Amino acid sequence: MTIGVGLLGLGTVGAGVASILTNPQGRHPMVADLALRRVAVRDPQRSRPVSLPPGSLVTDPLLVVDDPAVEIVVEVMGGLEPARTLILRAISAGKSVVTANKAVIARHGEEIAAAAAERGVYVLIEAAVGGGIPIIEPLKQSLGGNRIRRVSGIINGTTNYILSRMADDGAGYGEVLAEAQALGYAEADPAADVEGGDAADKIAILAGLAYGGTISRASIATEGIDRLDARDVAYAAKLGFVVKLLAVAEHMGDDAEGGALLDVRVNPTLLPKPHPLAGVNGVNNAILVEGDPVGQVMFYGPGAGAGPTASAVVADILNIAGIHRVSGPQAGLDPLLAASRWRRCSLVGSAHTSHRNYVRLRTLDEAGVIGKIGTCFGDAGVSIQSIVQFAGHAGAAEIVTITHEVLEARFRAALDAIEALPEVQAVAACLRTL
Amino acid sequence: MTIGVGLLGLGTVGAGVASILTNPQGRHPMVADLALRRVAVRDPQRSRPVSLPPGSLVTDPLLVVDDPAVEIVVEVMGGLEPARTLILRAISAGKSVVTANKAVIARHGEEIAAAAAERGVYVLIEAAVGGGIPIIEPLKQSLGGNRIRRVSGIINGTTNYILSRMADDGAGYGEVLAEAQALGYAEADPAADVEGGDAADKIAILAGLAYGGTISRASIATEGIDRLDARDVAYAAKLGFVVKLLAVAEHMGDDAEGGALLDVRVNPTLLPKPHPLAGVNGVNNAILVEGDPVGQVMFYGPGAGAGPTASAVVADILNIAGIHRVSGPQAGLDPLLAASRWRRCSLVGSAHTSHRNYVRLRTLDEAGVIGKIGTCFGDAGVSIQSIVQFAGHAGAAEIVTITHEVLEARFRAALDAIEALPEVQAVAACLRTL
Repeated sequence: MTIGVGLLGLGTVGAGVASILTNPQGRHPMVADLALRRVAVRDPQRSRPVSLPPGSLVTDPLLVVDDPAVEIVVEVMGGLEPARTLILRAISAGKSVVTANKAVIARHGEEIAAAAAERGVYVLIEAAVGGGIPIIEPLKQSLGGNRIRRVSGIINGTTNYILSRMADDGAGYGEVLAEAQALGYAEADPAADVEGGDAADKIAILAGLAYGGTISRASIATEGIDRLDARDVAYAAKLGFVVKLLAVAEHMGDDAEGGALLDVRVNPTLLPKPHPLAGVNGVNNAILVEGDPVGQVMFYGPGAGAGPTASAVVADILNIAGIHRVSGPQAGLDPLLAASRWRRCSLVGSAHTSHRNYVRLRTLDEAGVIGKIGTCFGDAGVSIQSIVQFAGHAGAAEIVTITHEVLEARFRAALDAIEALPEVQAVAACLRTL
Repeated sequence: MTIGVGLLGLGTVGAGVASILTNPQGRHPMVADLALRRVAVRDPQRSRPVSLPPGSLVTDPLLVVDDPAVEIVVEVMGGLEPARTLILRAISAGKSVVTANKAVIARHGEEIAAAAAERGVYVLIEAAVGGGIPIIEPLKQSLGGNRIRRVSGIINGTTNYILSRMADDGAGYGEVLAEAQALGYAEADPAADVEGGDAADKIAILAGLAYGGTISRASIATEGIDRLDARDVAYAAKLGFVVKLLAVAEHMGDDAEGGALLDVRVNPTLLPKPHPLAGVNGVNNAILVEGDPVGQVMFYGPGAGAGPTASAVVADILNIAGIHRVSGPQAGLDPLLAASRWRRCSLVGSAHTSHRNYVRLRTLDEAGVIGKIGTCFGDAGVSIQSIVQFAGHAGAAEIVTITHEVLEARFRAALDAIEALPEVQAVAACLRTL
């Protein structure tokens, strides 16, 4: 029973998918049942690293979406438009869609999901988060018995590469970024990665699946690594921590109508070295899911790259092909695979969340400063785990404090008092801490 | 659409499953559609930590299996019989089965899978390997586009706890085993864990899914940790390794008829400290899957325990419930979820495999011994990565060698020559090394 597949885009991921579909031997036997019918590219003259079925290459993506021989449409062109329009058109033609496009799903996921539910087709997105790591399907299909407490992840490979190099070599942010760009690990315009937007797209998707609701992408508090000082990476290491760009979605409770209250955010964060995510280095990604009763489970692997991402895309195609085999024409959708929304999710403001903090102060190098700072924290009800003075220069000192878990509003009040001390020159850095 | 569930066994895992099913709020909404109809226990008088639906408790397991209101049978009683017979009876009554019973699946998996395929029902086994870690379903549903090169895992929590303690505290095997028994991490009769049989059951299951064939459980070369010397754990640490009980299934190539040739084994193994599995400590489990094009993906979490295992059992129930919603009565099976076998798998003998080795020799403490040992390795074509002398006592020395990757047969020839040297008192330990 052959199933026709159409491909929108033949960049590195598209070529990886085509390469798997046209070389099925040694893979799951269902791969041999997938026939690549149509491939839309911008420039048909460009030489490609993969040999396609004769006559399959077209330049008009509508020839892929509208081809009656194409039953599953794979969107790997990226960008918001025309990707969104083509996905919606495929859905309205009754075709299931596989996409690696996190930006489209994070921004238009609700519209796309509603259209798919209405038409009775699947939109699968394993490749949109974590590259080759199976995380979307396990969240949907393997953890439904749990009350999910928290999903946290290192889900941007570029920033993790930069942070790993800063930690290993003590190099500065700008220097490592330039190196990452030269190696192809960072884009010429790195904003989406280093400012945290890509990670925010991905945590919006993960949180939506974990909690069964739509996450307001625009409300996700997002802080990148672009203003991170190499000094803080070094001080964190001395205190037993590593700095990672962490995306977190945490269940804070339910509102009066049973909707979920969530804290969803992206921050450079200090992780204690024994934490399962602390050892995730280079361009690798990992997602930690904590729930009741499962405890902690972690999914780890290559967060990007043509091969891993193609593996995830083909997994989605196979899932659709598998369910096509058993579904009658009027069967409706498997609720696990379709991942329908089942509750309202609202994001809570930062002031109401509690966490540990790392704070670096630049102060005068005078006796008694640490005492005054400690008093400010104490007066605001912030208890301190450690307070350490590092060498400054020219009469200045650097004082690093790690607090215990404290309400953000209370912590901010303490910082205001500290900033007002005459001995304190600046709150030089402030980072969340697990 | 309520689906009736019957439970065989109400031990810790069974009680965990019952607790999830009877407390659905906050979990995936499909959990609320699962109705616990019948629970078979040996002693109905015993007090249970979970409140069951009135009248559901029975002592005759056939009342569960044969109840027409039970559509999915969950076997969490353990042991080979009557578990096998009850599973087969449920299948022949047209019911899908969920089981956490690795021993039954590793030994009777082929018979059970054939009966299930014949009758058109599912037998899902997520809980049989890795406790709460989603690994069975991801192997079946998320990696089918890959050519799997290797599956390796730390899949026995008891031995990993013992090895972690030996590494951290330099304690001896017997001492830590006694402590693990006192803490409930090891059974009174620890043989299945410490001799590697439990890990062999599990790698048989993982290899069968990864390579699509039946693995001869009896042919899996199995070495446990029960003869491991604390000294080797300490020397390994000094050389940059940790010792783990590793279960491995590796694709060695295909035979003339396209069957897969596999090396499947369980051994205490030295892992370089930066290896993704090296940091897996305590009772945690992790499974590393390596394939083309995905690269390396790892699944990590609690390898045992009532809560995690119950999470995996409920995931399987939900998968069956989900597919029941879309399958017509004569629909056949989703080939991904059913995990049908698609090729013949044969195990190759050890002599034909290549790997690195750690070997500890007890020798006379004389000049020139290291040279003679090095010459024996060199004459046999075994190249050496490091050779280090550790302090012995009373005129004896301990010499530890790490070889480069070498054919097992060639390595054994070198060891024979070394053992014949007059300065060598004994080959005291020999461990595989990644």
